[in-house]
Amino acid sequence: MSGALLLTGIGQLLTLRGAVPRRGWALADPGIIRDAAVLVRGDRIAAAGPRREIERLPEARRARKTDLGGRVMLPGLVDSHTHLVFAGSRLEEYELRLAGATYEEIARAGGGIQSSVRGLRAARPAELERGALARLVQFAAHGTTTVESKSGYGLDLANELKILRVQRALARRQPVEIVSTFLGAHVVPPEYRRRPQAYVDLVTRRMIPAVARERLAEFCDVFCDRGAFTPGQARAILAAGRAWGLEPRLHADQLARTGAARLAIEIRAASADHLDRVTGSDIAQLGRSGVVCTLLPGASLHLGVPFAPGRALVDAGAIVALATDFNPGTSPTLSLPMAISLACAGMRLAPAEAIAAATVNAAYSLRRHDRIGTIEAGKQADLAVFDVADYREIPYYFGVHLTSMTLKRGKIVYARDGVRGWPRSAPGDA
Amino acid sequence: MSGALLLTGIGQLLTLRGAVPRRGWALADPGIIRDAAVLVRGDRIAAAGPRREIERLPEARRARKTDLGGRVMLPGLVDSHTHLVFAGSRLEEYELRLAGATYEEIARAGGGIQSSVRGLRAARPAELERGALARLVQFAAHGTTTVESKSGYGLDLANELKILRVQRALARRQPVEIVSTFLGAHVVPPEYRRRPQAYVDLVTRRMIPAVARERLAEFCDVFCDRGAFTPGQARAILAAGRAWGLEPRLHADQLARTGAARLAIEIRAASADHLDRVTGSDIAQLGRSGVVCTLLPGASLHLGVPFAPGRALVDAGAIVALATDFNPGTSPTLSLPMAISLACAGMRLAPAEAIAAATVNAAYSLRRHDRIGTIEAGKQADLAVFDVADYREIPYYFGVHLTSMTLKRGKIVYARDGVRGWPRSAPGDA
Repeated sequence: MSGALLLTGIGQLLTLRGAVPRRGWALADPGIIRDAAVLVRGDRIAAAGPRREIERLPEARRARKTDLGGRVMLPGLVDSHTHLVFAGSRLEEYELRLAGATYEEIARAGGGIQSSVRGLRAARPAELERGALARLVQFAAHGTTTVESKSGYGLDLANELKILRVQRALARRQPVEIVSTFLGAHVVPPEYRRRPQAYVDLVTRRMIPAVARERLAEFCDVFCDRGAFTPGQARAILAAGRAWGLEPRLHADQLARTGAARLAIEIRAASADHLDRVTGSDIAQLGRSGVVCTLLPGASLHLGVPFAPGRALVDAGAIVALATDFNPGTSPTLSLPMAISLACAGMRLAPAEAIAAATVNAAYSLRRHDRIGTIEAGKQADLAVFDVADYREIPYYFGVHLTSMTLKRGKIVYARDGVRGWPRSAPGDA
Repeated sequence: MSGALLLTGIGQLLTLRGAVPRRGWALADPGIIRDAAVLVRGDRIAAAGPRREIERLPEARRARKTDLGGRVMLPGLVDSHTHLVFAGSRLEEYELRLAGATYEEIARAGGGIQSSVRGLRAARPAELERGALARLVQFAAHGTTTVESKSGYGLDLANELKILRVQRALARRQPVEIVSTFLGAHVVPPEYRRRPQAYVDLVTRRMIPAVARERLAEFCDVFCDRGAFTPGQARAILAAGRAWGLEPRLHADQLARTGAARLAIEIRAASADHLDRVTGSDIAQLGRSGVVCTLLPGASLHLGVPFAPGRALVDAGAIVALATDFNPGTSPTLSLPMAISLACAGMRLAPAEAIAAATVNAAYSLRRHDRIGTIEAGKQADLAVFDVADYREIPYYFGVHLTSMTLKRGKIVYARDGVRGWPRSAPGDA
């Protein structure tokens, strides 16, 4: 018996093979193989294809076998926009918002991001790590194997570094892959309210160099919107980030159309996220661009606002990705299957389009498409198994927990009826 | 050691104690006890209250103990509107709808309910039972302990009886409580398209008496809407049902404002369901009536239409309940926590209001409020435990699976890391 693992009895294997990134018609082709098997060797996929072909391989005959009973397998889901590390929830604000307060009213009253900043600054790293670890267990339980996570609740040098160091520690101590993004420009912190340019200077001259020297992030992000940073400020921050090797991403046009999507195109950002307010000509230009359009329908649902024009972006040829925007204020879901359901019901994406957006295109936006986001020989063995007979049932049975197994780098990190291979943590911690 | 079970370490116990039904301000008071315990004797709650008081009881000292580690306990959720028994999914139609077809276009093309009718008529009872059983396991896994279920995919005497007999068999062979509703008047079947009155006669003269004689249902329901039955037809059917002892419920004003909500008030129906299209004066009258307004936000989300005016109904004083409308066409979710999240985000109900709507008021609409829907001594021990520290997190973490334990009549029917006490069934069956 070799060390290999044969996953067989896969009713539908969604390989997502083909050109990367996916756009236009290609977005709707999930590359399905029926009655399939996947051979895993170490942390890699050794072979993936029709069951009869794979089972015939000499290595497959000697491998440990797991029969998946006709279930559906997807590439491990890639969540390309989250705010994983925070202290405390924002339940009070949630009730206020349900009672009628707007996002911006809450922010002006010191709630919103500012309340997360107060909590974060007061928290010890061990406490932050414990909370985030419990959340990562839940990400894996919902099929996610890679999570991008942003700083941005620190808003001073020490606390921004604290978040990014917690993320690095987490990357080492648990199996879900973490991609770090520096979001020092999340909002202007209260102590700089009257001199925002001084805060921009702090970000560009002190924070970015410190983050880069410690190799704490791969990307630099700016919340470029009404009440946050202007396109001019965002341009300066992202240029400084790039000079230090951090590729740009942007929170763009969520609350108002401020021109952030145009900026993303101009500077060739890896991704422009949210896009709730983009209009016809923005959509056409995004469609022709190489910028990934990362849609976050969970935030729209939670805030009770219309969904971003996902269908129009797909039809315009855009590289659409899909993420949870997991954060305690505006999108507390960490279920990518939920985001996939919302993209279908709320934005009229086809199930296959939404799944490609949450796997291969999300991997592309994180510059990891050579390694994750599809199921083919040589790729990392990041796999998610769902308790359905047809992949379209994943969005269809919305809000129902269907993930039955998750593998990261060839190891089972979640299995219904038991979570394996995790450091211990209290289940109610999240 | 007695046969009693002591559930202790409950961080928040939502008793929902008080006057039934709940309306107005009372809807927002969940009757919370912090640091609580519940003593279960047989299938009943023997005592519920502050931990120190309960633990002091002689019977509690001898009981088996389960410490819930600070988790939140609610009354077992009551799903008062589902269509549980069907054959096959409606995935093709789902993709068509996402691509732009309307509910009514699909119905005219022979899709929609008619496709479920074809599937149901062709299915053997054992097959229907197997599918429904797998779904009931999932209901329990999401915290639901009582499920109302409607016939209505048979649309002839033999097949309507087939559904209701399957429901009776299921009620005996698994723990989730099933409340049967006869919905022979779901749509006019194809063979009666040109003579709908003949179908109404069949329902009133043959089906209702047959259902009542076999004691197969407690309620009679009519889909009274554009494309289904008129208020006049509904009045005749529900009068016949009542004469045979079946209390009336109504699918009302979902697709168009046809006057069904007014009819519900006039005939003092147990419940008027959907209500997406009710307007100002309907809302005011419902608010003063004794009719339960059963809101089904899952269907609105799945169909991509605006949510019903839940906030306005609560503010008008209506007895609001909340259900999944679980069915393969328009609301494939069987998660009441999901419906609770949607009622908050989409209809601006407070978390406490939504939880009261999915427990005590739903129980009232099913005429079981003397036995279920609250946690107090003498009530049935139907309990749901969630992996959170504050009940507001249940809607807040939308789409995330948080149920950690479900008890029905004092027996554990779901526990995370293992489902106990169920007859065996294939997990992928649903």
